[in-house]
Amino acid sequence: MDNMLVSQKHALDGQHGGSVTSPLGFSAAGVTCGLKASGTPDLALVYSSRPCTAAGVFTLNRIMAAPCVVSRETLATNPDQIQAVVINAGNANACTGEPGLCAARRTQEITAVELGCHPNAVLVLSTGIIGVQLDVEKMIAGVRQAVGQLAMDNGEAAARAIMTTDTRPKRMATSIDLPHGRVTIGGMAKGSGMIHPNMATMLAVLSTDARAPAPLLQRQLRAAVGCSFNRISVDGDTSTNDSVLLLANGASGVELRGPEEAAAFGSALTEICLALAHEIVRDGEGASRFVQLTVTGTEDAADALAVARTIATSPLVKTAFAGGDPNWGRILAAAGRAGVPFDPYQVGLTVGAGTQSVSLVLGGAPCAFDPARAQAIFAEPEFQISLSLGSGSGQATVWTCDLTHDYVTINADYHT
Amino acid sequence: MDNMLVSQKHALDGQHGGSVTSPLGFSAAGVTCGLKASGTPDLALVYSSRPCTAAGVFTLNRIMAAPCVVSRETLATNPDQIQAVVINAGNANACTGEPGLCAARRTQEITAVELGCHPNAVLVLSTGIIGVQLDVEKMIAGVRQAVGQLAMDNGEAAARAIMTTDTRPKRMATSIDLPHGRVTIGGMAKGSGMIHPNMATMLAVLSTDARAPAPLLQRQLRAAVGCSFNRISVDGDTSTNDSVLLLANGASGVELRGPEEAAAFGSALTEICLALAHEIVRDGEGASRFVQLTVTGTEDAADALAVARTIATSPLVKTAFAGGDPNWGRILAAAGRAGVPFDPYQVGLTVGAGTQSVSLVLGGAPCAFDPARAQAIFAEPEFQISLSLGSGSGQATVWTCDLTHDYVTINADYHT
Repeated sequence: MDNMLVSQKHALDGQHGGSVTSPLGFSAAGVTCGLKASGTPDLALVYSSRPCTAAGVFTLNRIMAAPCVVSRETLATNPDQIQAVVINAGNANACTGEPGLCAARRTQEITAVELGCHPNAVLVLSTGIIGVQLDVEKMIAGVRQAVGQLAMDNGEAAARAIMTTDTRPKRMATSIDLPHGRVTIGGMAKGSGMIHPNMATMLAVLSTDARAPAPLLQRQLRAAVGCSFNRISVDGDTSTNDSVLLLANGASGVELRGPEEAAAFGSALTEICLALAHEIVRDGEGASRFVQLTVTGTEDAADALAVARTIATSPLVKTAFAGGDPNWGRILAAAGRAGVPFDPYQVGLTVGAGTQSVSLVLGGAPCAFDPARAQAIFAEPEFQISLSLGSGSGQATVWTCDLTHDYVTINADYHT
Repeated sequence: MDNMLVSQKHALDGQHGGSVTSPLGFSAAGVTCGLKASGTPDLALVYSSRPCTAAGVFTLNRIMAAPCVVSRETLATNPDQIQAVVINAGNANACTGEPGLCAARRTQEITAVELGCHPNAVLVLSTGIIGVQLDVEKMIAGVRQAVGQLAMDNGEAAARAIMTTDTRPKRMATSIDLPHGRVTIGGMAKGSGMIHPNMATMLAVLSTDARAPAPLLQRQLRAAVGCSFNRISVDGDTSTNDSVLLLANGASGVELRGPEEAAAFGSALTEICLALAHEIVRDGEGASRFVQLTVTGTEDAADALAVARTIATSPLVKTAFAGGDPNWGRILAAAGRAGVPFDPYQVGLTVGAGTQSVSLVLGGAPCAFDPARAQAIFAEPEFQISLSLGSGSGQATVWTCDLTHDYVTINADYHT
């Protein structure tokens, strides 16, 4: 059994139809209900006829959108009988007070009536403008339309309906062969978004036909999100609506037994999350470069992550990336303000793209590198940066993009 | 005695010649030594024939530039006999290892020889590109030239010589009448800067003809900086070179006696620092709007400051400002991710400009405000935002600018 090999192969499925409906027993729909002024699809439904165990990870923002509040409550009370996820784009239903909570619950109820299940079997997610009440009539019409269009080959349509400023749908699937059979994990995600300019909301829905208890799913989802969706940054702004859901319907008849099978599943789940997370960064608002940043040599992983995040969100670093400029001083300066102790005279910095790499800094001072080679690496659409801060064993990797004119245009030049 | 009134009147001096040489006994020079490729002035010297007590506040960045390391050491060993500050633009002398420290010390020595004082009477500051060794020969030539041009009416020239991407020199002076006579405080500062694109380095040098012991100056400078320079943000990137120095030469013959006179002096010092800090924000890289942001109702001032800083550095908030867009959802969402506890249903938000103000949010939900009035306020070049988060007594005010296309141009489209 070579899970990684198998899952690697199937991870390519995203380009060949892999989606949230790839696992057995899932169907989906993507429809237009009129929440987006553009008239493009804005409501997605994911459905499993078999009840699912489910898990969810939600934004840590103090101002949590109504659908996140409602879905978190629903998952807490009914984690073993989830059947549907309704996602609308065009309105975040955040900062909408009590009416917003009512609108989210009403969406649950209507969907339950249409699907013939309990309201507590329905999860809801939203993305779009903040502070505007959700038009429930449009939601009702959209849900009815979506229920009528549920199909196994509508995974792409669902991924498209949750897009906001995304330029392309993000979907993926992978399979792993376990001793008692094959299980499949599918998923879709959206990145930075607005219909009017708004929060960069990250949503993802993952599905699997494996059978697993909800607490195991929750642990695995939390771990997978921790090293994927939580390691990316487009602009450092944590949304009021960020959510990742995982539904397991057991339709494959294969149950995750014992720690080894759980680990194989967790590894494949992480792979899907990472692939979707990378797609979000690559398609970040205005992004023209995808940068992998690894920090090593700190006392622990938390310190490495703190440094990596500070660099990955620095406007000066990200504008230098936009210019294709090997301005390494900004990277070190950002590291220095992360609040993590290190010896400036032990700092090393290496950059690479493809098979090329160049050491820019050793022992805290610039190396005698060839500027043209450094320039060539920073001019690539994808490159890697490795920053070593000493001899500790802490390390962390994050992914970020550049801060471009288009980012400013997307977020400043449109008006509410 | 009405110190505030007197100091208010004299604060306008910035437009009429007020500068670092306004206090008695200070002279200055601004010359061109060739560190800037543009050929504009790049070396400033501030001098007092009488030895000064002095204080300094330096960057908290782990990677501290060589001149900051040297000046901090000098202040620690010789705080009562400072006579000169040499500031160069065009090269930050940061990430330059041991050679960088030697270059900073060599600058001290040369200046001391030229002025006939001890090297420990000379402080050094730098701003410009990181990671390039400072050309000491150019510094020597520049210092010699500057010593020859020292004059009481060269405060403007000195303020101009420390500019990088600043579009105008920043200088200011104020006077206060104490029971035993008048004392004057002058100052100059520079903001976000590069010659090649680089760190937004903030430097300020303050002078006074009051007589005060160094420990008192240090306490007063720290307090003044804490509520002025430390409350502004252009892009959230703390430089390797940020420094504020204060020199007191006692030339007025007026000594600060007792807590009341110290408080009057401290108040005027804060006023100067605040005026210079505001000038830095107004002249921030690419900035087109100046925004005052006050957060109230948190448990303590530290919490209020954490929320205010998170909002003031949010790319989504700052791009909305650039668009003149009353996108208040982004302000609340940024507040929510600051890591500070508050009840989302107690949030209030008011914006104002001039005599106009509009309440946008009450009890966490949007008010029925006139969108045109909100739009008009956000379209102003200067406006205020007040965010209340509950009933606590904590509050803090910060000043920030917008994130514009020009910021990206300045920092991305030029190359090292």
